[in-house]
Amino acid sequence: MDGRNLDDLCINTIRTLAMDMVEQAQSGHPGMPMGAATMAYVLWTRFLRHNPADPSWPDRDRFVLSAGHGCALLYALLHLTGYNLPLEQLERFRQWGSLTPGHPERGLVPGVETTTGPLGQGFASGVGMAIAERMLAARFNRPGYELVNHDTYGIVSDGDLMEGISSEAASLAGHLKLGRLTYLYDDNRITIEGSTSLSFTEDVAGRFAAYGWFVQEVNGNDIEQLTRALETARFQHDQPSLIIARTHIAYGSPHKQDSAAAHGAPLGADEVRRTKEALGWPPDSHFWVPPEALAHFRLARECGAEGQRMWEQRLAEYRGAYPELASEWDRRQRGELPKDWEAALPVFGDATAAVSTREASGQVLNSLASLVPELVGGSADLAPSNNTYLKGEGEFSATTPQGRNLHFGVREHAMGAILSGLAAHGGLRPYGGTFLVFSDYMRAAIRLAAMMHLPVVYVFTHDSIGLGEDGPTHQPVEHLAALRAMPNLTVLRLADANETVAAWRWALEHRDGPTALVLSRQKLPVLDRKVYAPASGLERGAYVLTRPAGGEPRLILIATGSEVSLALAVSRELESRGVPVQVVSMPGWELFAAQPPGYQKSVLPDSAAARMSIEAGSSFGWHRWLGTHGEAVALDRFGASAPGEVLLERLGFSVGAIVNRALRLLESTPQ
Amino acid sequence: MDGRNLDDLCINTIRTLAMDMVEQAQSGHPGMPMGAATMAYVLWTRFLRHNPADPSWPDRDRFVLSAGHGCALLYALLHLTGYNLPLEQLERFRQWGSLTPGHPERGLVPGVETTTGPLGQGFASGVGMAIAERMLAARFNRPGYELVNHDTYGIVSDGDLMEGISSEAASLAGHLKLGRLTYLYDDNRITIEGSTSLSFTEDVAGRFAAYGWFVQEVNGNDIEQLTRALETARFQHDQPSLIIARTHIAYGSPHKQDSAAAHGAPLGADEVRRTKEALGWPPDSHFWVPPEALAHFRLARECGAEGQRMWEQRLAEYRGAYPELASEWDRRQRGELPKDWEAALPVFGDATAAVSTREASGQVLNSLASLVPELVGGSADLAPSNNTYLKGEGEFSATTPQGRNLHFGVREHAMGAILSGLAAHGGLRPYGGTFLVFSDYMRAAIRLAAMMHLPVVYVFTHDSIGLGEDGPTHQPVEHLAALRAMPNLTVLRLADANETVAAWRWALEHRDGPTALVLSRQKLPVLDRKVYAPASGLERGAYVLTRPAGGEPRLILIATGSEVSLALAVSRELESRGVPVQVVSMPGWELFAAQPPGYQKSVLPDSAAARMSIEAGSSFGWHRWLGTHGEAVALDRFGASAPGEVLLERLGFSVGAIVNRALRLLESTPQ
Repeated sequence: MDGRNLDDLCINTIRTLAMDMVEQAQSGHPGMPMGAATMAYVLWTRFLRHNPADPSWPDRDRFVLSAGHGCALLYALLHLTGYNLPLEQLERFRQWGSLTPGHPERGLVPGVETTTGPLGQGFASGVGMAIAERMLAARFNRPGYELVNHDTYGIVSDGDLMEGISSEAASLAGHLKLGRLTYLYDDNRITIEGSTSLSFTEDVAGRFAAYGWFVQEVNGNDIEQLTRALETARFQHDQPSLIIARTHIAYGSPHKQDSAAAHGAPLGADEVRRTKEALGWPPDSHFWVPPEALAHFRLARECGAEGQRMWEQRLAEYRGAYPELASEWDRRQRGELPKDWEAALPVFGDATAAVSTREASGQVLNSLASLVPELVGGSADLAPSNNTYLKGEGEFSATTPQGRNLHFGVREHAMGAILSGLAAHGGLRPYGGTFLVFSDYMRAAIRLAAMMHLPVVYVFTHDSIGLGEDGPTHQPVEHLAALRAMPNLTVLRLADANETVAAWRWALEHRDGPTALVLSRQKLPVLDRKVYAPASGLERGAYVLTRPAGGEPRLILIATGSEVSLALAVSRELESRGVPVQVVSMPGWELFAAQPPGYQKSVLPDSAAARMSIEAGSSFGWHRWLGTHGEAVALDRFGASAPGEVLLERLGFSVGAIVNRALRLLESTPQ
Repeated sequence: MDGRNLDDLCINTIRTLAMDMVEQAQSGHPGMPMGAATMAYVLWTRFLRHNPADPSWPDRDRFVLSAGHGCALLYALLHLTGYNLPLEQLERFRQWGSLTPGHPERGLVPGVETTTGPLGQGFASGVGMAIAERMLAARFNRPGYELVNHDTYGIVSDGDLMEGISSEAASLAGHLKLGRLTYLYDDNRITIEGSTSLSFTEDVAGRFAAYGWFVQEVNGNDIEQLTRALETARFQHDQPSLIIARTHIAYGSPHKQDSAAAHGAPLGADEVRRTKEALGWPPDSHFWVPPEALAHFRLARECGAEGQRMWEQRLAEYRGAYPELASEWDRRQRGELPKDWEAALPVFGDATAAVSTREASGQVLNSLASLVPELVGGSADLAPSNNTYLKGEGEFSATTPQGRNLHFGVREHAMGAILSGLAAHGGLRPYGGTFLVFSDYMRAAIRLAAMMHLPVVYVFTHDSIGLGEDGPTHQPVEHLAALRAMPNLTVLRLADANETVAAWRWALEHRDGPTALVLSRQKLPVLDRKVYAPASGLERGAYVLTRPAGGEPRLILIATGSEVSLALAVSRELESRGVPVQVVSMPGWELFAAQPPGYQKSVLPDSAAARMSIEAGSSFGWHRWLGTHGEAVALDRFGASAPGEVLLERLGFSVGAIVNRALRLLESTPQ
């Protein structure tokens, strides 16, 4: 078989496998894989450096299928090149328990670098991977020892490019001159509603050139054009590359090529048959992989093993030449923190003046900065407010890749996905900050981080109406509830500086999912831990700060964040009136919910029927902890613009108002 | 005083008022208003057609301050041109109860068209206003009678342009050739973290040209250049315009001009004094408005009154010439629906085959389409899945502005803000669709719609794991909780076709805030309303579908959406085992929470201690309705990829599994 025919055979293997997967499942997206098969083939057989036998090889090229609905393409490539994804898995496409879900899932499917499907997320996460590569290269590479030296590739769709998150990420990637990032744009001109001419007629090439990208346009079915373009892109060291490849959705299908009908539904048995005929395929074959094609794809295993072997040899030599760096490399690859890192954490003594938890968070970060070099991050243009800046660690930029402070710009959504990309790449512990209210902008990215169990830390400051004058547009109300409702995300709202230290400690020690730190703008008293229980109680999600002097409590006050000091003041007032009160700080609902019932009951004993929560946010969700006779001191409306203390007072968060509510509650509660 | 000096006097009046407001409040953003004062002055005195005496004149030009943190600029303009915003309000900037909150708030401040502050939202909402103008012009204008003929202007910042939502909206605006839209870009090169060179170095002009905009670049302090650019923009009938105006943040401040320090903090009394000196202002004046400047600004009242008078005369003549259209115009301006519109709503009889609620929603829309011409909308490229298309009503496009179907492209976030712009403009009842899971992408826009009490309808389909194979990236879990937690938003999850009809009816009858309709992908039985209570029970948020045959219930099943039929099946099985069950459909939590306690207790009587909720989503929030002995049948994890029925079964949503849980619950519940 000559090369040309072998190429066609391989490309059509991808196409027919994709058709067969979707047809078998009676569900999925056949058109994209059929149209993008050629570019994927060229990329995966001629450029991508990877080792199917070891998807965790640290210096592999990263591949992101941002158009995640085309996952049949990726599963075909993973199977064909020899990942641990047998053909039977392709036959179980989109079925319960299979390794071939409806969109690519990191952690489930071997070789999938990042979960995609929600459009634009892969585009932006790939930017994060390219940043990670450059950061790690700057840290670890030494002359002759390029430990970190790989590309990030992706296939993106018109839908990806329409999403705002991609614009944010593209602008930042251009600014940062990420020359190791190359995206192939599958320009098939078809969206779900029909032709892209309905809504997407911008000049994509001009737009990306304006972002600072190197743009090429090719015929997406022309192997030579694609090869030349990818080669050219590889030599653009100071610009990310976009290769606009004109393709045809459902290429080869006699009746559905170039039609929206081929986007998200099976072609139908007849049309599959006809397409196979048109492609010169045995029309009645199912999941047929020609041996020559398989052999050609499987060269990836040999090449990959050899590539990794050489890299490992380089690493071994590096260990001899740079033992300290190598030891740091190994530690970071294992995901371990430096020995005794906790010793560097600050302790806020009883005598410390009031300090906002955002400032305490900034102090933690800066205390750890030199000891934990994998800690990198920044803010969506709010570093001075989020206290996210690592002093003395420099800016990450095109010319200073060793810098650890990222300037994301006013781009929360891209920041979220880039943080995921940094974490997914490995070797880094990323964090990113914005105001809590703007977590809304990045929610879709947080969700994917939670789904992928990525250890990202979100630094959400200005966590209530306590922020004051900026007003309701900037005051979170429902955000705590909205974040707490998300699976796999740990939300920690901190009562004082020492809880903030405990929260960072928890977040860095846990690598199984993202953590949202929720921090005050306003100063908060540092609780005297000689009087109150230690802040390490945070690790159990909720803990008793203080019990009544004599006997059982009649009232339990449960508070979080800035309202904990308020609850303590309320309890003092109530105690002075003879009401025994127990005060609970509940920084982390998810952690508390995971405690054994015995501990939960010790914090919230059934005996004290009256419970009151105090949190300057929505009451939504609080009933879980309040029982039948509980009451939420909460904010079930948007805030207002006024100084923070005025707002808190006006909206019911004052000692007097809460004491009165507590007394009324006690009156109405059966003893 | 010559014209040049008068211009300067007016511009410096804006600058000094802004400084004084921020200084008095000891909070706010002085730099932007000082830098953008010249462009705002030129726009507001030479171009903007408005009548300060009547901010609701339907044909006024719209002005959007997308850089909402610069609100002192807008408040100065509103006061100076004669809106009902007296100087004392400027002196109470950012104080409790004032009309001058920390960011502009529609509905609170006379003359504010849309609430801004979260960046990018104003940019995109302005696009919605420009679309509304074009839609209404196409509907109502007749030769010689241009009822609708106004521009939409805005001032946008670097932060606005960095946000992805602006990219989405800009691409769509270019596609739609919105020639009546003109944005001034306040290019001051300063962000909160410092110079824009830290993160924002793209070629903005090239980018907007690529979107199809007409781009000009001017000196933002040059009145003549600004005037010429605005004139030129006005004559670009088939392109939106971006005027990039190079400005200087905190213009005139000797020590803080061009510095990030002037972005979000008062200049300080000394610096204010020095700036006033530098501007030739009495240094110790406070809130001083030179009479000549005031007189010049106040010409807006005369011009505006005259403009409105002429327009009203035109409307009066139009009433004679086109009485039917005029009557529709008046009705739409009043916000009333056509008489007897409900008669057009479909009724799904008992014998109707199972139908998904998304399909029922599409039938409602199409039943109303011809009768309710103000109903306009579309989808973020999911119309065939969201069933949002109005058949026979055409596409809204540059060449067919009479079309009522909007193709938003894969741009959920911009769609959200554009819907708000359409609603804020007046004369239209907009709706927009996407998958429920992607409500995350548009959450920030939904929040502002809720804050503004805008009557937008969101059509969120594919509302649970019931959607099946697309997998966890597409399966909402926490979204119901996250949306229900938001103030002013009504979330309605519909159990069957007739509840869907009732929900649309409710949504269109209520104009005090947005409604989210939550709809199934899968078919659901049409409940036999001869057996079960009528769907009009939706209006009270929750209602008893069926009571036990004899006596009091021992168990209450509370369900929403697709789980209502499941609850009924469970109740039949339990009744057959002798357990008396009451089944409650609870489509709208917010509506139920607003009912009098008597009604609430009739639906959820205290007597039946055991309650169980069934909803294929997060349990978060359900404890409110469950009491101490309640249990939530819910999904507190991400979903998976498999056929919908398989998923529901595997994840616990089957009759057998729930019956068993109910029996165990009854055993452990005290009688």
